[in-house]
Amino acid sequence: MRTGPAFDIASLHAAYQNGLTAAGMIDAVFARIAEVNDPGIFIHLADIRDLLAEAEALGAFDPATKPLWGIPFAVKDNIDVAGMPTTAACPDYSYMPKADATVVRLLKEAGALVIGKTNLDQFATGLVGVRSPYPIPRNAIDPDLVPGGSSSGSAVATAQGIVSFALGTDTAGSGRIPAGLNNIVGLKPSLGAISTTGVIPACRTLDCVSVFALTVDDAWKIFSIASQPDPSDEYSRTIPAAGFGTTVPMLTIGVPAKGDLRFFGDDAMQASYEAALAMLSGLGHRLVEIPFGDFYKVADLLYEGAWVAERYAAVKEFFDNKEASFHPVTRKIYGAAKTLSAADAFNGFYALQALKRKLTPVIASVDLFCVPTAPRHYTRAELEAEPIRENSRLGTYTNFVNLLDLCGIAVPTGLRKDGRPASVTLLSSFGKDGVTASLARDIHAENALTLGATGWPRPLVKKTDHAQRSDLISVVVVGAHLTEMPLNGQLLDLNGRLLRETQTSDCYRLYALRGQNPPKPGLIRVAAGFGSPIEVEVWQLAPEAFGRFAAGIPAPLSIGTIMLADGTSAKGFLVESTALSDAIEITHYGGWRKFIAATT
Amino acid sequence: MRTGPAFDIASLHAAYQNGLTAAGMIDAVFARIAEVNDPGIFIHLADIRDLLAEAEALGAFDPATKPLWGIPFAVKDNIDVAGMPTTAACPDYSYMPKADATVVRLLKEAGALVIGKTNLDQFATGLVGVRSPYPIPRNAIDPDLVPGGSSSGSAVATAQGIVSFALGTDTAGSGRIPAGLNNIVGLKPSLGAISTTGVIPACRTLDCVSVFALTVDDAWKIFSIASQPDPSDEYSRTIPAAGFGTTVPMLTIGVPAKGDLRFFGDDAMQASYEAALAMLSGLGHRLVEIPFGDFYKVADLLYEGAWVAERYAAVKEFFDNKEASFHPVTRKIYGAAKTLSAADAFNGFYALQALKRKLTPVIASVDLFCVPTAPRHYTRAELEAEPIRENSRLGTYTNFVNLLDLCGIAVPTGLRKDGRPASVTLLSSFGKDGVTASLARDIHAENALTLGATGWPRPLVKKTDHAQRSDLISVVVVGAHLTEMPLNGQLLDLNGRLLRETQTSDCYRLYALRGQNPPKPGLIRVAAGFGSPIEVEVWQLAPEAFGRFAAGIPAPLSIGTIMLADGTSAKGFLVESTALSDAIEITHYGGWRKFIAATT
Repeated sequence: MRTGPAFDIASLHAAYQNGLTAAGMIDAVFARIAEVNDPGIFIHLADIRDLLAEAEALGAFDPATKPLWGIPFAVKDNIDVAGMPTTAACPDYSYMPKADATVVRLLKEAGALVIGKTNLDQFATGLVGVRSPYPIPRNAIDPDLVPGGSSSGSAVATAQGIVSFALGTDTAGSGRIPAGLNNIVGLKPSLGAISTTGVIPACRTLDCVSVFALTVDDAWKIFSIASQPDPSDEYSRTIPAAGFGTTVPMLTIGVPAKGDLRFFGDDAMQASYEAALAMLSGLGHRLVEIPFGDFYKVADLLYEGAWVAERYAAVKEFFDNKEASFHPVTRKIYGAAKTLSAADAFNGFYALQALKRKLTPVIASVDLFCVPTAPRHYTRAELEAEPIRENSRLGTYTNFVNLLDLCGIAVPTGLRKDGRPASVTLLSSFGKDGVTASLARDIHAENALTLGATGWPRPLVKKTDHAQRSDLISVVVVGAHLTEMPLNGQLLDLNGRLLRETQTSDCYRLYALRGQNPPKPGLIRVAAGFGSPIEVEVWQLAPEAFGRFAAGIPAPLSIGTIMLADGTSAKGFLVESTALSDAIEITHYGGWRKFIAATT
Repeated sequence: MRTGPAFDIASLHAAYQNGLTAAGMIDAVFARIAEVNDPGIFIHLADIRDLLAEAEALGAFDPATKPLWGIPFAVKDNIDVAGMPTTAACPDYSYMPKADATVVRLLKEAGALVIGKTNLDQFATGLVGVRSPYPIPRNAIDPDLVPGGSSSGSAVATAQGIVSFALGTDTAGSGRIPAGLNNIVGLKPSLGAISTTGVIPACRTLDCVSVFALTVDDAWKIFSIASQPDPSDEYSRTIPAAGFGTTVPMLTIGVPAKGDLRFFGDDAMQASYEAALAMLSGLGHRLVEIPFGDFYKVADLLYEGAWVAERYAAVKEFFDNKEASFHPVTRKIYGAAKTLSAADAFNGFYALQALKRKLTPVIASVDLFCVPTAPRHYTRAELEAEPIRENSRLGTYTNFVNLLDLCGIAVPTGLRKDGRPASVTLLSSFGKDGVTASLARDIHAENALTLGATGWPRPLVKKTDHAQRSDLISVVVVGAHLTEMPLNGQLLDLNGRLLRETQTSDCYRLYALRGQNPPKPGLIRVAAGFGSPIEVEVWQLAPEAFGRFAAGIPAPLSIGTIMLADGTSAKGFLVESTALSDAIEITHYGGWRKFIAATT
């Protein structure tokens, strides 16, 4: 077990609270670097005196104003940190940036400290972590295995507990595969959520900055701070870091149809994946098998034609003049793109568009997907034997993701019998980062894991609150909209979900209205002591659906605020008092359903 | 004046009602073809016997089931019609399609009859109408002028009254420029609204099928029938043909800042444009000057790099083998694209993305734009002198439109003093085709024009109904949300618009509620004869905004249905009767504003 304070943010902040100093934290970092003794992790390390000065400048421990106060992190070496060379693992390409990348600046402003720049598959091209002229980082769990890439150093630094978190980038899976191979969390945001200003492009239209962390809560915290619209990044999009920590019960989770699953002979990986799915069912979610052939066709596009050309375009001048400076495998890949024409590029876009058309309804049919993070493990020897084929196999469940504008998070599901790490990745459509992270949090909580390779116990995770999802509006229905009642279809047509059955507070009366077709009751609030609890259902609708629903409610009904028996309140049906002159009071039945049952 | 029945759909259907036969209509068509005697309009004409047989097959006049019963139309010769050769104005390229393009099939199913295939700038590349190996169509208004392109034949056939409407295509402006130069309406739908299956691509990612018609109502009718999602077209999008015929008063209309307007010396065009803007102000709309430099930069991208390469990609094999078959100007343009690399294509996308980022908020800041359709007129002699430069000048106000995913409609604004046609184009964001068409209808109604070159009077247009816009929800506000009251900002923050000030019916009472901060009234419905009219404002919100607004209304207020003095009703604020026990009745003040004025 790694000695000294655990570096997950909660534990480290607790240690600061109990007297640990930033200087003490920095000592622990360098002690661990020595202890781990892996020359492949960092390409550049911060000067300890500079770090001490930065820590000094933070002032007293103050997590309220600086949520990352004194939190050490590592930065993949294709992301600029002012004063540290950026190499992209290509020494001849290196330069000294004057400014921090936007994401680095935001994290520093929150109090985090950059420990160093980490090794990667050169120019972030690869999923293996062995395509670098620098020493290859050792897989933190099993040194025989490749560390995974392209963000190899960032993942290993996090898994070894040298830093609390690390930044990676993810175009084809570089933010997920190394997380899966090193027993840590890898959050790949929706494209555009985190600025790529100050990041060396791989495929500019597909790149994103990713977060490696020891826990899902930490990954989300970093994402929440880093996810800021950036006018200097033309591909930046506004994605509120919302919806984390609350999920609806009974998510519909898409999984690859049995016949489409690929493990390339790694039975232990298949077993771990099946166990993870069983666990999700156990959590009450609904698994739906989805044919995955078209997803794989999308994945194939990433290294054929257009998008390889985009990688080449990003470094065209350098490649044309310094081809010999490239790693042999990277050089082979980029070289193949030199001759591609603009017409080839368009043909790639047309092929993607055709597949998107087929997959859009499929993606919309589920809340999210759960796939293996990697189909199998590879030893370094296996990779050297087949450097390109095995690399592309590693991307089986990752290569299609950014092309389809999905967000994702890789989360550990425990160590396999052979001691090697297992992981699943949750994927969802653009902007649903909070939905995937929330379920990932539940998955992490279900697995009594230690963190990465540190031996530190996972901090107790408060079980995700299954209250209403923050982006949904609750509607209390009383009569014709109840489940299986005549107007319930209106809620289903608007993708409404039944949240729960409950009762109102005891200050309501219920009336059967005259001349309504279908028959409808009217609920009206009365002074305390003059009413009774009435049985209701609470449904949830998206804001636009709620708007259309409310706009369609005819007089004498209205949408007001209903007090519920548990002391909470929600929007719901009320009736205008003037409509009660000829109505029949049915309060004593206790609810519309009971009245209907008793009178028909 | 063209003899025989007017061919706008309303007039032609009236003629059928009064005994005209389809055979009589067909005779009129061929009589007019002879009368106009312009060999440049059609590349292929339907066989009159086939037409008579098709007309026979329509059965008795039945506009209810066949809304285009017996309506003659022409089809640009880059759109397939089964049994007629498709040439794209390149004889060596021509082929005989077995099936109709989807759009042609839909129109035939509605009862329309294809008269022939029309001339175009070869492969739809050009805005001039003179880049064809066939005779050049004569401008229908002034034979000295170029007809405009690329949909030259379709526009002239419509303007001459040979057909009721015609199909064109529009990538750079081919559906708008020839409409503007021939005194007719040119509707360029949102990309993806009308299927391009069966259309020879120019730029597949930017192409759309457009509609030339004599009136806005006709153009909209054709669009409504043709705008159908098509699974066989990967770029098809679902765009409900909605919102036509109703506009909100006081639209915010963006116009190019004075310094950015370009007329290239055509003062009469400038005068006609200024008159059109004055007329829009007169209709009560608000004009806002918008800097247009970035729109022009987008326009420049269309014939630089990526998108020229896309044109080349569409006919690559044919061009590589049969370069000599191309029109010299077209050949020069396509030839320049041969050497473009995939990297060049991506650099084009990056440049567009950067400009989109700057323009998105600008576009969102207005309801629509009003620009000149063409900056000036060109004679054929002027075009021959400078074939490429003058062509690109013609696209000043059209080339940026599809790159920015805007929809548009060109509408005549009358003939200039020199007898040449004037026209403006209304542009709006994706999906707002109904908004632009509705205002175009008002503009057409304001100009006592004859149709095209036919001399037929424009049918009387029922003035556009200024009721609520169909996609917005009306909300009646009574108190703190009234204009300049404390909570009015909530409506403005949700992009609410004030529709009108009015009164409720006389069955309401108004109360000043206790313990509300800010102070609020409560409106409650009472039995007829027991209430009074109360002054209210009607605001409009988009469904999602309305949903968020309604979800935020605290008890004892609710959103129900308010009866208004004019007999209409709308959603609006009601109060729960139980909250009135300690409230003060203020019904006699006639409204919250008067109560506030009287008591403070």
